[in-house]
Amino acid sequence: MPVVCVYVWKGFSDEAKRKTIEGITKVFTDLGIPKEAVEVIIIEIPKESWGIAGLPASEKLREVLPP
Amino acid sequence: MPVVCVYVWKGFSDEAKRKTIEGITKVFTDLGIPKEAVEVIIIEIPKESWGIAGLPASEKLREVLPP
Amino acid sequence: MPVVCVYVWKGFSDEAKRKTIEGITKVFTDLGIPKEAVEVIIIEIPKESWGIAGLPASEKLREVLPP
Amino acid sequence: MPVVCVYVWKGFSDEAKRKTIEGITKVFTDLGIPKEAVEVIIIEIPKESWGIAGLPASEKLREVLPP
Amino acid sequence: MPVVCVYVWKGFSDEAKRKTIEGITKVFTDLGIPKEAVEVIIIEIPKESWGIAGLPASEKLREVLPP
Amino acid sequence: MPVVCVYVWKGFSDEAKRKTIEGITKVFTDLGIPKEAVEVIIIEIPKESWGIAGLPASEKLREVLPP
Repeated sequence: MPVVCVYVWKGFSDEAKRKTIEGITKVFTDLGIPKEAVEVIIIEIPKESWGIAGLPASEKLREVLPP
Repeated sequence: MPVVCVYVWKGFSDEAKRKTIEGITKVFTDLGIPKEAVEVIIIEIPKESWGIAGLPASEKLREVLPP
Repeated sequence: MPVVCVYVWKGFSDEAKRKTIEGITKVFTDLGIPKEAVEVIIIEIPKESWGIAGLPASEKLREVLPP
Repeated sequence: MPVVCVYVWKGFSDEAKRKTIEGITKVFTDLGIPKEAVEVIIIEIPKESWGIAGLPASEKLREVLPP
Repeated sequence: MPVVCVYVWKGFSDEAKRKTIEGITKVFTDLGIPKEAVEVIIIEIPKESWGIAGLPASEKLREVLPP
Repeated sequence: MPVVCVYVWKGFSDEAKRKTIEGITKVFTDLGIPKEAVEVIIIEIPKESWGIAGLPASEKLREVLPP
């Protein structure tokens, strides 16, 4: 433990994934948990499949792109 | 809040996704929650990866298609 | 299918749960899916365990209560 | 109930999926639960998106392949 | 990998949890995965919070108890 | 986006939760995402309900405590 599931928009770059994994793991090693115990699972979701305020993000946040 | 994760079979149409997002958001605005607080995440799963009664849905429910 | 996981703040009333289950199920029956196929799982999370904008909701949204 | 979400690396074969669905369902029928009540959802995650010990599995466990 | 999230009704006994953990782990060791790589997370949900066919399981399946 | 679900053992202190929320949010603001867009949901799981290598963590890791 912990297991961390991260839902992001599709298109998250490999560099962003790497930083996400590294950064989240460090949050827990800073709490005294050994890094081998930390699993991070990144789940990419197309903006058409992500709703905010009742609309798909592909419409509501058309210009915003994942890092 | 809330965050709503919806697991469906792959092939859910964009129109069905839009109605899912709109309809689920309305369930919560009807409870007095502001729509900006509602996030809906639709996760599409191939029928080969969805088991019902011990069999993949691709066999158990071969003729049933997502909307 | 579908399976719907709904994350809400702890304290959601039984009446709100009932309306959530009924309302979300209707979203899918309106899409032509039989109601027996819809499962809704409500997961209650204490506000101390829910972070928004870097703070626990118990601080960031101290006065807001679940329905 | 139950609903079982299984996160695995992308590349899990259809044969492995079938055995996963069959085997997990049997765990619950052995507990007296009817097989019709068991849903198994397999979510495939690319190794680039799965972090272990602070690194993507695509680096940390480069040679390990899913069954 | 894998990580397995199991949603069950509240009241699942410690013996049933133990069998669930042991049985699901065996499904994956039978596929050639080392047992140390398997994490099983059991999430207990009150029947009031679990909807089936539009109703809480506490009404729809009043007499059915978890193992 | 993102939505981050963090599964930890029951007993995680409020201070550890606060640091988890703050730290994970910072991982994403460092990637250029506004902090208001980050939701972190911490789900506490009793050690009896968390399996590692086929055994409940309450046995396998009896002496290890959450931070």
